[in-house]
Amino acid sequence: MLKASDIMSHDVATIRGSATVAEAVKLMKLKNLRTLIVDIRSELDAYGIVTLSDVVYQVVAYGKDPEQMRVYEIMTKPCIVINPDLGVEYVARLFANTGIRIAPVIRGELLGIVSEADIVYKGDFLENPKLPLLQRELARTIENAKAICEAKGADSKECIDAWALVEEIEAEAIYQEGADSPETTAFQAYCLEHPEILQVRHKALVE
Amino acid sequence: MLKASDIMSHDVATIRGSATVAEAVKLMKLKNLRTLIVDIRSELDAYGIVTLSDVVYQVVAYGKDPEQMRVYEIMTKPCIVINPDLGVEYVARLFANTGIRIAPVIRGELLGIVSEADIVYKGDFLENPKLPLLQRELARTIENAKAICEAKGADSKECIDAWALVEEIEAEAIYQEGADSPETTAFQAYCLEHPEILQVRHKALVE
Amino acid sequence: MLKASDIMSHDVATIRGSATVAEAVKLMKLKNLRTLIVDIRSELDAYGIVTLSDVVYQVVAYGKDPEQMRVYEIMTKPCIVINPDLGVEYVARLFANTGIRIAPVIRGELLGIVSEADIVYKGDFLENPKLPLLQRELARTIENAKAICEAKGADSKECIDAWALVEEIEAEAIYQEGADSPETTAFQAYCLEHPEILQVRHKALVE
Amino acid sequence: MLKASDIMSHDVATIRGSATVAEAVKLMKLKNLRTLIVDIRSELDAYGIVTLSDVVYQVVAYGKDPEQMRVYEIMTKPCIVINPDLGVEYVARLFANTGIRIAPVIRGELLGIVSEADIVYKGDFLENPKLPLLQRELARTIENAKAICEAKGADSKECIDAWALVEEIEAEAIYQEGADSPETTAFQAYCLEHPEILQVRHKALVE
Amino acid sequence: MLKASDIMSHDVATIRGSATVAEAVKLMKLKNLRTLIVDIRSELDAYGIVTLSDVVYQVVAYGKDPEQMRVYEIMTKPCIVINPDLGVEYVARLFANTGIRIAPVIRGELLGIVSEADIVYKGDFLENPKLPLLQRELARTIENAKAICEAKGADSKECIDAWALVEEIEAEAIYQEGADSPETTAFQAYCLEHPEILQVRHKALVE
Amino acid sequence: MLKASDIMSHDVATIRGSATVAEAVKLMKLKNLRTLIVDIRSELDAYGIVTLSDVVYQVVAYGKDPEQMRVYEIMTKPCIVINPDLGVEYVARLFANTGIRIAPVIRGELLGIVSEADIVYKGDFLENPKLPLLQRELARTIENAKAICEAKGADSKECIDAWALVEEIEAEAIYQEGADSPETTAFQAYCLEHPEILQVRHKALVE
Repeated sequence: MLKASDIMSHDVATIRGSATVAEAVKLMKLKNLRTLIVDIRSELDAYGIVTLSDVVYQVVAYGKDPEQMRVYEIMTKPCIVINPDLGVEYVARLFANTGIRIAPVIRGELLGIVSEADIVYKGDFLENPKLPLLQRELARTIENAKAICEAKGADSKECIDAWALVEEIEAEAIYQEGADSPETTAFQAYCLEHPEILQVRHKALVE
Repeated sequence: MLKASDIMSHDVATIRGSATVAEAVKLMKLKNLRTLIVDIRSELDAYGIVTLSDVVYQVVAYGKDPEQMRVYEIMTKPCIVINPDLGVEYVARLFANTGIRIAPVIRGELLGIVSEADIVYKGDFLENPKLPLLQRELARTIENAKAICEAKGADSKECIDAWALVEEIEAEAIYQEGADSPETTAFQAYCLEHPEILQVRHKALVE
Repeated sequence: MLKASDIMSHDVATIRGSATVAEAVKLMKLKNLRTLIVDIRSELDAYGIVTLSDVVYQVVAYGKDPEQMRVYEIMTKPCIVINPDLGVEYVARLFANTGIRIAPVIRGELLGIVSEADIVYKGDFLENPKLPLLQRELARTIENAKAICEAKGADSKECIDAWALVEEIEAEAIYQEGADSPETTAFQAYCLEHPEILQVRHKALVE
Repeated sequence: MLKASDIMSHDVATIRGSATVAEAVKLMKLKNLRTLIVDIRSELDAYGIVTLSDVVYQVVAYGKDPEQMRVYEIMTKPCIVINPDLGVEYVARLFANTGIRIAPVIRGELLGIVSEADIVYKGDFLENPKLPLLQRELARTIENAKAICEAKGADSKECIDAWALVEEIEAEAIYQEGADSPETTAFQAYCLEHPEILQVRHKALVE
Repeated sequence: MLKASDIMSHDVATIRGSATVAEAVKLMKLKNLRTLIVDIRSELDAYGIVTLSDVVYQVVAYGKDPEQMRVYEIMTKPCIVINPDLGVEYVARLFANTGIRIAPVIRGELLGIVSEADIVYKGDFLENPKLPLLQRELARTIENAKAICEAKGADSKECIDAWALVEEIEAEAIYQEGADSPETTAFQAYCLEHPEILQVRHKALVE
Repeated sequence: MLKASDIMSHDVATIRGSATVAEAVKLMKLKNLRTLIVDIRSELDAYGIVTLSDVVYQVVAYGKDPEQMRVYEIMTKPCIVINPDLGVEYVARLFANTGIRIAPVIRGELLGIVSEADIVYKGDFLENPKLPLLQRELARTIENAKAICEAKGADSKECIDAWALVEEIEAEAIYQEGADSPETTAFQAYCLEHPEILQVRHKALVE
């Protein structure tokens, strides 16, 4: 799976919060960017962001004079930031959940910026959509767990660990899909046929 | 003042609602666009729109397979449309009020598309922000009204019409700014000194 | 299908943005209306709207004096406007998507106004709900496509065109319902039995 | 000040949650209403509400068949309810804060229903807007407090109580207006000139 | 089913709207509370509420001085109130629908306060989740209705009343689940086998 | 200024996404917590969060069985995370802007969790509200800049740097307050009296 640092743009421009909106627009135009980062002044400070939308919604829409307005009047600060290791699908979900379209990638310092265009054009969701991958991985893991349990016994530690992995992947797949919990999970189905596994697992939990 | 048709892009690509999301993304990439219009099939039908955000928020974020999803599952239809004559500041205000970032320009047929980038880069808000223009126009109109009323009399039809124009421009300027109504409007201030104008205007209204 | 112009009210009252809220309320009461349109002053101008909700939420709720407040302080401008040809179900969907309850019908000039009451009481959704109609039309179109393809051959232009129409109607029906894309569309089901059609269609697309 | 019970409509129709949407629409039409109340079945149950908007947004907009849909699929339950004694301005503010347009008036049982039209047409905000009333009451109360303190002494219980009333009315007036707290309240201004009052009040608080 | 009065906290602290935010925070800290109620001054007045969130979002986030800000600047008034008899699941649904996390319980006077923690820790949803209870009750009621109708005849008043009860419970169960209406309700399924019941019911409705 | 790591709680409990809601509630109760963190499984994974609100809004409100529902059905993942160095006022502003009430503190690994109660009770906003501090710092910095410029000359590098610092602090103070940009900034006021500074600064920018 690709991560934020694999798709981010390194082409980031920063601006001071005290700059005028006119200066910000000229910088965007010059650099062919839709977004500027408002840099931090100290470790305690927060990153800010100013986008084309802020200019349209808060300056043009009210006929305001961009020479008189300052970046700090229209910026979002603190902005939501992204960890460079975060998987691209999680970046997309974070964007969807919080309604943002772009965010700086930070680890200690400003590393880059990830936009919707980066996600769609530099990501690999066209070739490798994650949900089908997870579903195939889930099927393989279930097969594997069944094989281990047959070989080592339903009450072996290896069997219990194998099903624990199944549960994690199944949880991720259902979460990813945004679906409801199934009536019967793969593990529960297995337990119906091999009830002895439950007693061992229970013992492991209480010890 | 510039209008929507002055700044719109003519570079519009349309797609059918039954196309797959994968087809939509490839078309966007090919044409270097962030948005596609879903065309109408008849006069009764509504224009739709699909953007990069729809792909990120509804497909990538859930790991869904873009070959299996269709445009009609993620498009916005009907979308908000723009009249080609609408002033650019009003386009910006409509975007701000409804939270959109792009819209097709329609008069009978699809003429073009206006985005935030068109508003900021093709508009003239840097050189001619509207609010200062309106405030200068308001000052001129007030001077003019006072001159007319002095020449023709505060109870003349010309004087009343001149103040009616002042009121309209003042209303537009305060609305544009998003400000509260003033304690005393320019006309009310004038009336305090020339109360005779009110009687004439009242007579005009009741006749 | 009925369209906006079939159900709109012609009983529209307009008001100037510089009028007081008290004047607006009296006009609503006199005309027994819940909404007034703020008329445009020039082609570049935008239509505005003021409703009972604006008066309750922004004047009564704050104990403000309606003689002192002006319509431009509480109106929505630009408001979302409706094309007279738009189908009534699309008007309803536009209302649902944008959270509005009434909108002016415009083509060049102000033709009328469509409210929720117009949609429910003047529309025909009780007798002719659209989704069952579409589903019946879809079933008929599928039958028709199968018959044409049997008569003319699965690789005939007539057959391909007939299935293209099926796809459009199926897309509209699923969109209308707000449902997910089906595992297998009607056309895909047909292709499983008549794979020769895909080769012809592919050829048509690349030519 | 008028209260909810002074302006509510007694013309309320109730419907069961299991009724079809078609039945609900016919009942609304018959009674010329925009809203129905879904009655409670027991003391523990909650009142529900179904409006024209629910029908437009959830039935017409999706082309659904109103004979097949039930009221419980589109109703809001529990709905926000209003106490019959609540002042009309507070009803309006509650509507504004929660985005509702109508609510049942309940005390033990269903007494009536208050809509935006009731607030605007049956209320007295045109003749007696609350904020100017409060501001006049505040001025009177300040005068009164000053007179009492002069007569009885700034350290008398009567003086302290009189200023406590001033503070309450000032708080209400500023809250009502939605304004920020003033730099100096009326009481603080008075204290600057009569610091002895603070010592007495402090003693009263700690005793 | 438990009701609001069964789980509410009696530990409620009230504050005046004119108190400073600093006083409110100290009172919360002293009493170990996250919420204060702003009491009413007269029957016409509305209850208000101030929470930790209001302090964080409106005071700390803007670096404001809590000695200078007043409770009325950050409180929510009127707040949504709860009837002591309301079932706990309905309290939870009201919270979910309106986005609140705590509310005063009022009947004539302030009786207590219900928070999310009260719902989760004092309610019985772990032992007695409502939906499974309703589904079991529905199954029993259907069995009962069938038995009554067999004994008394499908056209008896007892049979009709028994199915009316089924419809109410089925409606409640589907509403509770947030599910769509079923293709065929339990009563409709019964009618397919015993069409005579419909004629009797119809007669009852028109008499 | 305090930072997130100064006020965070170290008392964090984690849970797997595949756990049942009943298990999550029991863990919250046992540990006396309102929130659990859903831990990551790999570096690419995202932190999740589940709170009392999720349980109330999505389980109790729908009468669902907490033994059947899983944490991944109700959690928020990815959740917004906080850098341990972020100033407490910025944490509060981030909460206000995104509507959250609690967030994990992450640097490489999970360090702690910051809630509204931590901000209000462990922060120092009662004693040291930030805005008055900034305003005093601004006043001092302006005095300092004036002194430097008088000593070194309005066209000295030291003078220009001193005013650059003034502009940054003024920007921060106005942003913090959420206020509009002033008509004339401190630096602009100084320039009116010492126009020579502008020429030097301009030269510095273009070199």
